Amino acid sequence: MPGRDEITDFERAAEFRASLRRFLRVSEDAARKEGLTPRRHLLLLMIKGAPDGSERSTVSELCERMQLAQSTVTELVQRAEEAGLVRRGQAENDGRVAHLTLTPEGERRLIAVHNDLRPEREALAELLHQLD
Amino acid sequence: MPGRDEITDFERAAEFRASLRRFLRVSEDAARKEGLTPRRHLLLLMIKGAPDGSERSTVSELCERMQLAQSTVTELVQRAEEAGLVRRGQAENDGRVAHLTLTPEGERRLIAVHNDLRPEREALAELLHQLD
Repeated sequence: MPGRDEITDFERAAEFRASLRRFLRVSEDAARKEGLTPRRHLLLLMIKGAPDGSERSTVSELCERMQLAQSTVTELVQRAEEAGLVRRGQAENDGRVAHLTLTPEGERRLIAVHNDLRPEREALAELLHQLD
Repeated sequence: MPGRDEITDFERAAEFRASLRRFLRVSEDAARKEGLTPRRHLLLLMIKGAPDGSERSTVSELCERMQLAQSTVTELVQRAEEAGLVRRGQAENDGRVAHLTLTPEGERRLIAVHNDLRPEREALAELLHQLD
């Protein structure tokens, strides 16, 4: 039945989206419990989880990874800096580019959310695996 | 090194979020190309991809799957109905509950977005598999 293949494909896509939305909802609640907006939580995660293990990032890198405009990320970083969650240092190789890292308080809150979300992360991974 | 495990965990979570945001961005662009807002595209997908293969859904089911309030979904459905993308019929077993299905035009647009997104869906699945 060629029709059935197509339907299964839509079912799979719909289930993927539904699982994702549930996960993001729980994630947003977990972030708020630590006094973080969902976007600020994402910022901290992107800095701490930099792809090269450096635990630091530039605004340009964050724009690409978060899929947000430069002005949005710049403001987000500024506010997180004012809130004592993020700090900036100059990059060694280019004095004009600031490398952002987490403050101990930023790290503490990120870890709290991250640990809180562990069961949901594992459940989502399991579900995506089944859909695969 | 116990510290390194934790870092890898953050890297994995960050990469997952970054991939997801890229995918959702491309998906939103694909929806807009067919004249659908991202939310309306999601609505059509959830109806067509109902978990039981019925290709229809009630407002209550959509609220749960889309993680949106009843009033939001009700309005979304009403507008999609006015736009000729969704239609409602009474359920056989309960005259008070309306079952929503796609119109041919709703289905045509959903399929166009869905086909357009095929490479991105496959790339995301591959990436999530690697992160697993």
